[in-house]
Amino acid sequence: MQTKLPLAFLLFISISLVTFGQSRKRINIPDIPGYRTLKCDFHMHTVFSDGTVWPTIRITEAWQEGLDAIAITDHIEYRPHSKDINADHNRSFDIAEPLAKNKNIILVKGAEITRSMPPGHLNALFIRNANLLERDDVFEAIKEARDQGAFLIWNHPGWKAQQPENTLWWEEHTQLLQKDMLHGIEVFNYNEHYPEAIDWARDKNLTVFANTDIHEPIGMAYDVVSGHRPMTLVFSRSRTEGGIKEALFSKRTVAWFNNTLVGKANLLEPLFFASIKISSPAVKVRVGETKRIEIENLSDVNYELELAQPGVGFDAPENITLKPHRITSLEISGNSEQVAEMGELKVFYKVKNMMVSSTDNLVVTFAFPNK
Amino acid sequence: MQTKLPLAFLLFISISLVTFGQSRKRINIPDIPGYRTLKCDFHMHTVFSDGTVWPTIRITEAWQEGLDAIAITDHIEYRPHSKDINADHNRSFDIAEPLAKNKNIILVKGAEITRSMPPGHLNALFIRNANLLERDDVFEAIKEARDQGAFLIWNHPGWKAQQPENTLWWEEHTQLLQKDMLHGIEVFNYNEHYPEAIDWARDKNLTVFANTDIHEPIGMAYDVVSGHRPMTLVFSRSRTEGGIKEALFSKRTVAWFNNTLVGKANLLEPLFFASIKISSPAVKVRVGETKRIEIENLSDVNYELELAQPGVGFDAPENITLKPHRITSLEISGNSEQVAEMGELKVFYKVKNMMVSSTDNLVVTFAFPNK
Amino acid sequence: MQTKLPLAFLLFISISLVTFGQSRKRINIPDIPGYRTLKCDFHMHTVFSDGTVWPTIRITEAWQEGLDAIAITDHIEYRPHSKDINADHNRSFDIAEPLAKNKNIILVKGAEITRSMPPGHLNALFIRNANLLERDDVFEAIKEARDQGAFLIWNHPGWKAQQPENTLWWEEHTQLLQKDMLHGIEVFNYNEHYPEAIDWARDKNLTVFANTDIHEPIGMAYDVVSGHRPMTLVFSRSRTEGGIKEALFSKRTVAWFNNTLVGKANLLEPLFFASIKISSPAVKVRVGETKRIEIENLSDVNYELELAQPGVGFDAPENITLKPHRITSLEISGNSEQVAEMGELKVFYKVKNMMVSSTDNLVVTFAFPNK
Amino acid sequence: MQTKLPLAFLLFISISLVTFGQSRKRINIPDIPGYRTLKCDFHMHTVFSDGTVWPTIRITEAWQEGLDAIAITDHIEYRPHSKDINADHNRSFDIAEPLAKNKNIILVKGAEITRSMPPGHLNALFIRNANLLERDDVFEAIKEARDQGAFLIWNHPGWKAQQPENTLWWEEHTQLLQKDMLHGIEVFNYNEHYPEAIDWARDKNLTVFANTDIHEPIGMAYDVVSGHRPMTLVFSRSRTEGGIKEALFSKRTVAWFNNTLVGKANLLEPLFFASIKISSPAVKVRVGETKRIEIENLSDVNYELELAQPGVGFDAPENITLKPHRITSLEISGNSEQVAEMGELKVFYKVKNMMVSSTDNLVVTFAFPNK
Repeated sequence: MQTKLPLAFLLFISISLVTFGQSRKRINIPDIPGYRTLKCDFHMHTVFSDGTVWPTIRITEAWQEGLDAIAITDHIEYRPHSKDINADHNRSFDIAEPLAKNKNIILVKGAEITRSMPPGHLNALFIRNANLLERDDVFEAIKEARDQGAFLIWNHPGWKAQQPENTLWWEEHTQLLQKDMLHGIEVFNYNEHYPEAIDWARDKNLTVFANTDIHEPIGMAYDVVSGHRPMTLVFSRSRTEGGIKEALFSKRTVAWFNNTLVGKANLLEPLFFASIKISSPAVKVRVGETKRIEIENLSDVNYELELAQPGVGFDAPENITLKPHRITSLEISGNSEQVAEMGELKVFYKVKNMMVSSTDNLVVTFAFPNK
Repeated sequence: MQTKLPLAFLLFISISLVTFGQSRKRINIPDIPGYRTLKCDFHMHTVFSDGTVWPTIRITEAWQEGLDAIAITDHIEYRPHSKDINADHNRSFDIAEPLAKNKNIILVKGAEITRSMPPGHLNALFIRNANLLERDDVFEAIKEARDQGAFLIWNHPGWKAQQPENTLWWEEHTQLLQKDMLHGIEVFNYNEHYPEAIDWARDKNLTVFANTDIHEPIGMAYDVVSGHRPMTLVFSRSRTEGGIKEALFSKRTVAWFNNTLVGKANLLEPLFFASIKISSPAVKVRVGETKRIEIENLSDVNYELELAQPGVGFDAPENITLKPHRITSLEISGNSEQVAEMGELKVFYKVKNMMVSSTDNLVVTFAFPNK
Repeated sequence: MQTKLPLAFLLFISISLVTFGQSRKRINIPDIPGYRTLKCDFHMHTVFSDGTVWPTIRITEAWQEGLDAIAITDHIEYRPHSKDINADHNRSFDIAEPLAKNKNIILVKGAEITRSMPPGHLNALFIRNANLLERDDVFEAIKEARDQGAFLIWNHPGWKAQQPENTLWWEEHTQLLQKDMLHGIEVFNYNEHYPEAIDWARDKNLTVFANTDIHEPIGMAYDVVSGHRPMTLVFSRSRTEGGIKEALFSKRTVAWFNNTLVGKANLLEPLFFASIKISSPAVKVRVGETKRIEIENLSDVNYELELAQPGVGFDAPENITLKPHRITSLEISGNSEQVAEMGELKVFYKVKNMMVSSTDNLVVTFAFPNK
Repeated sequence: MQTKLPLAFLLFISISLVTFGQSRKRINIPDIPGYRTLKCDFHMHTVFSDGTVWPTIRITEAWQEGLDAIAITDHIEYRPHSKDINADHNRSFDIAEPLAKNKNIILVKGAEITRSMPPGHLNALFIRNANLLERDDVFEAIKEARDQGAFLIWNHPGWKAQQPENTLWWEEHTQLLQKDMLHGIEVFNYNEHYPEAIDWARDKNLTVFANTDIHEPIGMAYDVVSGHRPMTLVFSRSRTEGGIKEALFSKRTVAWFNNTLVGKANLLEPLFFASIKISSPAVKVRVGETKRIEIENLSDVNYELELAQPGVGFDAPENITLKPHRITSLEISGNSEQVAEMGELKVFYKVKNMMVSSTDNLVVTFAFPNK
């Protein structure tokens, strides 16, 4: 006999039968000319080192949050769950890989070489066999990784547990650099940031990273529903592991966390302009007149602009916030007769949340035809 | 040398240095006269059976979400991670217990006896040794649990994988009931609900439960930031394990999920009235006049009321929603001279989100002095 | 002397200097082949009748919320603020018009003819002079509007104040229809809905509307930050007043409120398919195999689908929710050898939140190549 | 004939029939010993000067947001809607007053004397007849207000339109002060803040205010659903107009905006401690041990604490955020044998979002018994 479900009860329940997380978010960060912008996180742990989740969870999290690629980087030297868990260093990758393929997430094979400072902790990405990194001598371990073709990142260089007073660059890092055993550096890790690392990246030509180093479920550390985890934007020729590897070695990354984007001007600038759409930029401003331009921000970034220098013959707002997925008005007012002679009105804005060094912002130029 | 951190960089980052989850929510569901209202979830898994988190995560989740008590109930018979994880059936409890003590979460020792239907899956709570539940015969396993003093719950009785067509009560459940081997039943499990179970609970005197049966990190299944997981409200004489055990055996629970509360009228009614505060309930309504009463809902529940019968001599609104943590106006208008003679205005509302059976709602009475 | 602003104070304040509402939202409802989808609200009031805002506020609200067009429709016959406000019936339009031009909002000139039932309240859109609608006889007023070229809408046909028992169609409405003095009907008004009106629209060939009839500031009635006001989607050949007028007379509208879309199947169907993007729809499903298709919902609508009939040779999920701006997996599993012979897998889903009549949903067909 | 409403249609609509704003929020800012903490906004406009809403809207907004008291302060000298609106200066108060009484909102009668700098704009509160403030000479107008018993506030002292270069105190303000014609000053207005005003308030003994100066509907300027408008917290002996007047003249206010609280230490400190609840503060910390204390923040304020000086014999966290309505752990660790000798552990924290001057924060002391 078919039991009829009572309506009164169903009415109040039926709305949320579908569980919360069973869909994938889209991260709205645009591609730039010539490259796809891949959203990546290259530093995370599982129960196979000192993390607290099964490896498949890292794939599910990445899929739900809209990432393109991740690396699981369990510690080689630190495995506190070994009383209960017996497995070699490749096991977390092997468990996660089938789900990664099913979900179309690029899973980069990695491991974290975990030593005291110097040189501290280093992530090795694109390795073939993590077990071979288990060496007494840290330089032997790093060399093994390099010989497997690894891309090597200095993790959390300013971590207080290892650099309590100052964030220093050590002689050992110079050696690693010279021997092709250091290629990138984290400027964001978990909830920390390292201003010194931004300048080292620029001066020593290192690839910048924003990684989570997440040990717990991701939702415990970040609001991934309305926000984003820290992530490394990789400007890649294709959505493939090979494309990512080429892009990392070619330094084409931007580190993104908490609405701040750190990287080179030649990447940040196209990223900014690909994020916005200007409606009818041509104006005809005369003295005493105000014209309104609409700028739509198509991205998830909240761009905060500050006027970098006054316009010639016109006023533009001191501050503009281009809120994500909204259209903002920019009003230009002619303040002298001179404005009539300008064929083009150039406005220079500092993008306060885009950093090209620890102290300098990207400056962008809007040029509005004025005829 | 002290490296001065550059201000420009700090300015944009400093806001969110504190990570997302490091605090505990308060669940606003009031105590009722004579009892504390404990927020509990008695069904969940870890990597030690087929879950995907380390046992300590279940404690951290419970602490963050404001729960008072949980039970980890790993399957006895189903342990798909056994290739990598070697441990006995008590291990997940033993790993979680120290953190539970530190965080002041009551951790009830439990296990899930996991068999085909009948009798399906049963949770055994308050057991002493989970290893002894590993028996060939399911009734032997349940008897062992009972002999350890366990409280036994029939889990997800309408789970389609075991009851694809109808949700049936089997002869075996009658036997368990007669032998004191069945004490409670889930009316909510994960994102499912079982109307039949509400009526069985009433007719056969079973304790009702809303449990998560969570396998993954909790934030993947529920919006625990702005909402709540399913939970069992236990009306206990004290915030202790002993108090909970007494309350469960005494049937003093309400199952709460998705803003619906299921239980006996003698628990739901005091819970409703403890949730609200009526400002100056005394009115003096005369024909043609309207008086306004303010009702504050101090709880996290969104109460939806529907007029159950018309007032004598006055009009009251057909529908009122008492939004959580807000004050709602209730307007009473005299519609006949008769109202002047009423010393008290009685208004009867059906609480649409409080169910005493699969078809019947709690009806509450407001009595406003009218002098 | 320049007073230096103290840093300590600035640090905590600087974040929100930009006020809340100074940007325009984008409503993500796609265009359909051949037409632009304009977001419109054709019923609202100002202080010049019984509303509580200045006419310019209606423009600012529309701009902020992303609307394309509105009509201010102050009552001709009901002006409770006339003790303080002296102005003719064209005044609210005249005050709002310059801001509408500046903000690029299409402002349709309108008025509400406000009489007892029958025929109740009617909106006249695209009128030239509202003062001429001030007539003793309601039919004279409606005729005057029609002679000005107006489009005429029966407002809130089921409003309890005028139709307390039933929502009836009166002889007078038949007369208006025959004399070209009635063209459209509201199926949504404020927070009400009129199922009867949906069927009348279909049977009598009336244009459907969802309007707010807003009197207060819009944010007092609707959550316009994370949600949307009721609105009429107009499928227009251009974003012009003329385009809208042609579309209304041609019945090309869909009424949208509270995630429900009401209209004709030949408009709802292209709207649904323009809202979604299917990644690599070609599958190769064999018996015992499961293939995953990703469906991205690019719109602000939460589409709720229910399987309308079983597939031949394969299983598809009973229910799917396509959440706005998220990617949802659809899994197809072969359940008989027959599936191998199907060159195309057809799946039929009822769209539960798209209504073609008061009882019937739109049914959509997905056809996945199977080779 | 009764038309049966079709279920399919109702199912999707029934959820939100109650409109958005018809309930009152509770603002969780606690009372302090001896005083009730009233939430007030003493500066706002309506269509009767240059505002854009009808006066009753200001009452409805205040009721919905949980305010206790407001003043409508239409400009005496600036009335741009006078072509359409004919009324005297008392009219906006008179229109709003009946609704204020019905909703139990204290409506203070006020007006804004609106002149060039010096002395700029001043609000006169608790006046009897606004019409008498219409004087040619600004000092005559202010004197008239004072003679009516008014409390006088210098509005937005650093408004760029009147003080483009610097925020200056003029000789005229000194004169007003000496003649009992200036009693308070805004430190927050709309979205602006004036650090100089904080110090003037302290040095010249002025009452501090945070007011909105709102012209448009409140929801256009602030997120009043999840946040709060700027408001003046008045520490009053009673919830009455008289109580407020006494409190203002006695300087018992704190200005609150954007999570920053500005005022005197003797008000901020009890406000802080009334906001929190410390569970079992008694600890027994020994060297090498860590004890955990739970602090619950019962208020809507997000308190950000920074360690002001190291503890003697123990470590406490550098930074703690006490999130609103959440419980935060504070961990104390013994770092020397000395800790065993301390009968009480004193911890000093700077409250970064509570300012006693433009540069100085409130410092609070936690004293935990250590036995």
